[in-house]
Amino acid sequence: MKKFLNDPEDFVDEMLDGIYRAHPQLTYVAEDRRCMVTAKPRTGKVGLATGGGSGHLPLFLGYVGEGMLDGAAVGGVFQSPSAEQMYEVTKHIDQGAGVVYIYGNYTGDIINFDMAAELADLDGIKVTQVVGNDDIASSIVGEEHKRRGVAGIFFVFKAAGAAAAEGLSLDEVTRIADKARLRTRTIGVALSSCVVPEIGHATFSIGPDEMEIGMGIHGEPGISRKKLAPADSVIDEMMERVFAEQSFSDRDEVAVLVNGLGGTPKEELYILFRRVSQLLGVRGVQAKHVWIGEFATAMEMAGASISILHLDEELDRLIGAPANTPFFSHYKA
Amino acid sequence: MKKFLNDPEDFVDEMLDGIYRAHPQLTYVAEDRRCMVTAKPRTGKVGLATGGGSGHLPLFLGYVGEGMLDGAAVGGVFQSPSAEQMYEVTKHIDQGAGVVYIYGNYTGDIINFDMAAELADLDGIKVTQVVGNDDIASSIVGEEHKRRGVAGIFFVFKAAGAAAAEGLSLDEVTRIADKARLRTRTIGVALSSCVVPEIGHATFSIGPDEMEIGMGIHGEPGISRKKLAPADSVIDEMMERVFAEQSFSDRDEVAVLVNGLGGTPKEELYILFRRVSQLLGVRGVQAKHVWIGEFATAMEMAGASISILHLDEELDRLIGAPANTPFFSHYKA
Repeated sequence: MKKFLNDPEDFVDEMLDGIYRAHPQLTYVAEDRRCMVTAKPRTGKVGLATGGGSGHLPLFLGYVGEGMLDGAAVGGVFQSPSAEQMYEVTKHIDQGAGVVYIYGNYTGDIINFDMAAELADLDGIKVTQVVGNDDIASSIVGEEHKRRGVAGIFFVFKAAGAAAAEGLSLDEVTRIADKARLRTRTIGVALSSCVVPEIGHATFSIGPDEMEIGMGIHGEPGISRKKLAPADSVIDEMMERVFAEQSFSDRDEVAVLVNGLGGTPKEELYILFRRVSQLLGVRGVQAKHVWIGEFATAMEMAGASISILHLDEELDRLIGAPANTPFFSHYKA
Repeated sequence: MKKFLNDPEDFVDEMLDGIYRAHPQLTYVAEDRRCMVTAKPRTGKVGLATGGGSGHLPLFLGYVGEGMLDGAAVGGVFQSPSAEQMYEVTKHIDQGAGVVYIYGNYTGDIINFDMAAELADLDGIKVTQVVGNDDIASSIVGEEHKRRGVAGIFFVFKAAGAAAAEGLSLDEVTRIADKARLRTRTIGVALSSCVVPEIGHATFSIGPDEMEIGMGIHGEPGISRKKLAPADSVIDEMMERVFAEQSFSDRDEVAVLVNGLGGTPKEELYILFRRVSQLLGVRGVQAKHVWIGEFATAMEMAGASISILHLDEELDRLIGAPANTPFFSHYKA
């Protein structure tokens, strides 16, 4: 294990200490660093909360900030935060307009967010939930509710965050978050494993010339392991699966996220995007918003994922709206 | 070699194709994709150009954009671009106010930028040069002119870019760039090698429990190779060298850049920053501006560098000014 760390047990808390030291626009409540909220709340706005395991930066907490989210409950590495932590975040960010939970489709997170919502309900706080399930490799068509949430949740955060910043109601923000969720598909490919600090060795083994398409961001098995192919062929295979689920017409517009899983250089992500762009071009589809970089990682895992959001006019406006968090900034074009 | 690529010979050109497809605010001149310029020039402004080898994204071309640079000549992986490419960029970005070259202290780059400056001079374009040499591990005190330029050049780009955006003269922008250069120190540590695509194997070998302090961003030898120590000890050793060269008084202010070399997760960078922040705090020094992430990489190399810019009032203003490039955005606080 080659990591910069002290005691592996302190990994998350020391990381959080570093984050609060670096970014005074973030703070925490309930005397618990894992209950992160924005230090700059906007009065009267619908609150947006997320939560999930650590080890995926910028996911999840990195999207707390202007035009995005208001709070995040922070779990251990690849572990759900507790219902109490989610509830504390909820209480703090509610401004009377209600709170939307947006998180990934993992059992522990669902159980805890459900419990937090019940606790909030007893306080008279209205909570709705949108559960990201964009990973098309994790279950078949027709069983979308079994799919995991991965990098595409970024688009749900972005659209819902902009909607809340516009002052829309809880119902409207929830509708928009759900629409962004339903119109997003992601597929990933892994080239190497990550190492959980407290475990200290690779989560899985993969040969020096192998790739695994569909691997999850915690190392969940994918759909095919084979010899690493040229970049264009890898993208062709991945995008074929995306196109099978999203029916585009000529002149349709999409947002594209080429996400590095942690260990893959940006140069390679751009080589991957080049092919995505070519394939969209052949179909007459315009990549209206493009982000390339690390948005949802699995620590040092080498690999990438492609997320495609099928835009409509409303989502185009919201995805393009300004945002500013310590990990993500977007100026209005 | 586990990389997403097609023919290794096409690595740079396909990467650039991806960049131009993703970011319409960037374009190129002389029908050469390696002569990158901003598509949104600002009339009358002093032009800022950089250049250098590929494989360091976001360095160098990633800083072309509003409030930063106007053009970048793009070399092969770890290779200097040509004098002609630098000259073409220069001609295009000069608006009559002159051009400042800001690049790293590497022999090939110096020879080619010198030649480009001579060609520009024949055209009546005034060119000044500021050569980044922030890497304190690459030569001793008193021999600073032999030091390599690494991640700290980001601060020179930022300060000079803001100065040019304010409409300052060539002499003033040059003075400010040089001041930022002189007040910046960087030290790095590597945990693993990078792989140059056309070579296909690790540039150097390093044991599974070793680190090398002072390693360069092309794999140049550092100053000590030893057993990987706890994160705090690594930072203590690195910062001791920084503090030996920068004399701080109580209440002094600095900008801090914790830069990942490519393969190191953001979580670990924050653990490193935590210790940097503690050490600065002990000295009464305030980290006024903090950036943590990947700013100057060596492809997939695991490792990090710490850059410290000793601020004064002028640099504080310029470092904090807004900027917006495809790879770096900063809102005014």
